[in-house]
Amino acid sequence: MNDSTQALAHFAATLSVDAIPESVIRRTEDLFLDWLGSALAGKDSRPVEAIARFATSMGPASGPSEILIHRRGTSPLVAAQVNAAASHVAEQDDVHNGSVFHPATIVFPAALAVAQAIGASGRELLTASVAGYEVGIRVGEFLGRSHYRIFHTTGTAGTFAAAAAVGHLLKLTPDQMRHAFGSAGTQSAGLWEFLRDAADSKQLHTAHAAGAGLTAAYLARDGFTGARHILDGPQGLAAGTSTDADARRLDDGLGTRWTLAETSFKFHAACRHTHPAADALQQVLREHRLAAGDIRAITAHVHQAAIDVLGPVVDPQTVHQSKFSMGTVLGLITVQGHAGLAEFDTHWRAEPVRAIHDKVSMRLDAEVDAAYPARWIGKVGVETTDGRRFEGKVLEPKGDPGNTLTRREIEHKALALACYRGAASTEEMQRVIARVWSLADAPSIAHFFAQH
Amino acid sequence: MNDSTQALAHFAATLSVDAIPESVIRRTEDLFLDWLGSALAGKDSRPVEAIARFATSMGPASGPSEILIHRRGTSPLVAAQVNAAASHVAEQDDVHNGSVFHPATIVFPAALAVAQAIGASGRELLTASVAGYEVGIRVGEFLGRSHYRIFHTTGTAGTFAAAAAVGHLLKLTPDQMRHAFGSAGTQSAGLWEFLRDAADSKQLHTAHAAGAGLTAAYLARDGFTGARHILDGPQGLAAGTSTDADARRLDDGLGTRWTLAETSFKFHAACRHTHPAADALQQVLREHRLAAGDIRAITAHVHQAAIDVLGPVVDPQTVHQSKFSMGTVLGLITVQGHAGLAEFDTHWRAEPVRAIHDKVSMRLDAEVDAAYPARWIGKVGVETTDGRRFEGKVLEPKGDPGNTLTRREIEHKALALACYRGAASTEEMQRVIARVWSLADAPSIAHFFAQH
Repeated sequence: MNDSTQALAHFAATLSVDAIPESVIRRTEDLFLDWLGSALAGKDSRPVEAIARFATSMGPASGPSEILIHRRGTSPLVAAQVNAAASHVAEQDDVHNGSVFHPATIVFPAALAVAQAIGASGRELLTASVAGYEVGIRVGEFLGRSHYRIFHTTGTAGTFAAAAAVGHLLKLTPDQMRHAFGSAGTQSAGLWEFLRDAADSKQLHTAHAAGAGLTAAYLARDGFTGARHILDGPQGLAAGTSTDADARRLDDGLGTRWTLAETSFKFHAACRHTHPAADALQQVLREHRLAAGDIRAITAHVHQAAIDVLGPVVDPQTVHQSKFSMGTVLGLITVQGHAGLAEFDTHWRAEPVRAIHDKVSMRLDAEVDAAYPARWIGKVGVETTDGRRFEGKVLEPKGDPGNTLTRREIEHKALALACYRGAASTEEMQRVIARVWSLADAPSIAHFFAQH
Repeated sequence: MNDSTQALAHFAATLSVDAIPESVIRRTEDLFLDWLGSALAGKDSRPVEAIARFATSMGPASGPSEILIHRRGTSPLVAAQVNAAASHVAEQDDVHNGSVFHPATIVFPAALAVAQAIGASGRELLTASVAGYEVGIRVGEFLGRSHYRIFHTTGTAGTFAAAAAVGHLLKLTPDQMRHAFGSAGTQSAGLWEFLRDAADSKQLHTAHAAGAGLTAAYLARDGFTGARHILDGPQGLAAGTSTDADARRLDDGLGTRWTLAETSFKFHAACRHTHPAADALQQVLREHRLAAGDIRAITAHVHQAAIDVLGPVVDPQTVHQSKFSMGTVLGLITVQGHAGLAEFDTHWRAEPVRAIHDKVSMRLDAEVDAAYPARWIGKVGVETTDGRRFEGKVLEPKGDPGNTLTRREIEHKALALACYRGAASTEEMQRVIARVWSLADAPSIAHFFAQH
């Protein structure tokens, strides 16, 4: 049966490094370094360490795959789960706009853990990661906006991304890859409900997705079968969790459209849905030299998904929840000039930030919503205490492909993330950075930090 | 907030053995022995052994919790996953009609693994298992028929059942239990799509649910939080996967209605949806002394869910898939007189069985459908080659609470399951049976088979 799922499975199984444009390989290295920083920034995070304690207590005492924040070896499954949990907590990992899927935090933990376990080369790791991105993003696009209203697409589409990356490393045939997709999708899970309570589920979602996808790929190598139409069948994932799924998205431009290169780096340390408005607000503040005391009201004109995800966060109770508060983010931008990790930790509930928070409202905007999710337009209206009104608009937020980060900016961000909780020193990170920039030439992927 | 979820969490956390009627404790022992037989019957099953190979390769070399089919110790997580996979493949594990949830294959693997790890007593194991049954069944009833059309409720509600049982053993507070529910539900997964291809997902669903629920409980003990309204919130499990969820089902009769005692033993080795018709057919064949050669046509008058689950299985390709074929099951009943494990293995595609298979059709029946899922009425119409027409009807299939198995019948069934693949000898099982009948007095749960 030659359908979209088969095409996707065939692509993921047979992708060759020679078929990938050089620029996409370079961008994969960029995203890998960006991810490494996020994974290290998860050190000492309470939910991340809880997942790490549990996973390691149920796993082996040692193993070939490294847990980055603990500098120790374990099994590929445990390493993938812990590194996936760790890399999604600082809210600095990458995102693909059209699918609203965070690929790095799923793909790289699974791919790195398995590459280290089987002695894969850097080129194999990069190729497998591209397969993971291309699959996960297309599944996210396929599941659509209706799915994202209730489901955390990174958790659900993520199982496919991990299965594709790991399946590629394990050299699955196209048929085995399709079985891996079946086992991945029948484990797909992750609900947004946790946002309402500032609960810890987000880290569990990434750990779960990376682990479930890795499991699916290993099982498929061993002959374990899955549903052929797990995505578009009458009792498949879309039938159960989406009302606007479009099967044509699954193999859209495979081999010519590189969705990995459409992935955005996060610049602000907050939910991506806040970034367009944050950039637009920075524009207004800069152009009109406004300070916090000048502000009477800020209206963020947003797409519906921003309201769905950020709307429930009315009064953030934790620093992590405040990263899902449009008011806190725009408050930090206004008062601190920047909404980075340090600004959040120190100022998320400071009085001046809180004062701006209370002046922020979100409003659904027809233009912004129509462009979403392909383009994330930022649009704000600012009213000053002396009655002036300004509007700010950015067509592409900082970090998006058309407004991307330079390698120097990526290095700087990764360094800041690695040092954030002391997970690595500047000197260590400089060695890591050099290794990443030559990843394509590495005969194997030695541990970055673990001694054994 | 004193709502249904809170009531359910409070019940699961604080349930005391003294609050449970003696008859319910005895029935829990019955169900435990019945489950042990099913778990042993999973030995050498290809999908089960694949899951076991993967889980043990990613887990520790030894540990306190036993894998029954391998007679070895491992971590609680790995043991729970493997025993859960093993106990759902023979299609002989128990089922609760109203929720269409298979409790044993989720609850006992998780509870036994953790009880062995923490040195819990037999009474604690039994009490925790009751908590698991009561929670899982109510979550299944809550999710409703619309959920079951696409989702394998045993996989989805199962995470809650495992979390409740393990959470009880870990002595979670009611608040921690609620957090465990949050983490369980945000991992809930399992799609029926695999049935169409006779794929291996069913074993993965039970392994996943037992593992995810166990994970959720351990995380909650460590302070990890989950969504408070994971079941009934606007972005919770029912919002995403059900259109007829009813929150009143969650705490219906807690502490007075013991849903565990409503659970049915499976008598035929096939999908439970085939059992009512199989019993009704046996009645017709017996009363009118009909043999296979007398049959022109059989019509099974069924509820809609039977059509949803069995309908896609038009031409079964494997012995496991044939257990989801109404035609094969009624064929075995007609030709062999019984549809047990041995009959399936030897005769599922035998010509005479196949001939009856082709004469079977299913028809939606208003009376049967209206009674479902509270009562599973069996109704068949049989037309003979000489033009006679007969009707059979059973109000409660063999194994249901009002038509249940005696302890002698349960022992006989468990023995047959244990010996089916040589997982245990008759002598060993006789010792196991004696231990189960005195489980309530056991100071701790030693391994049943593993030496270390």
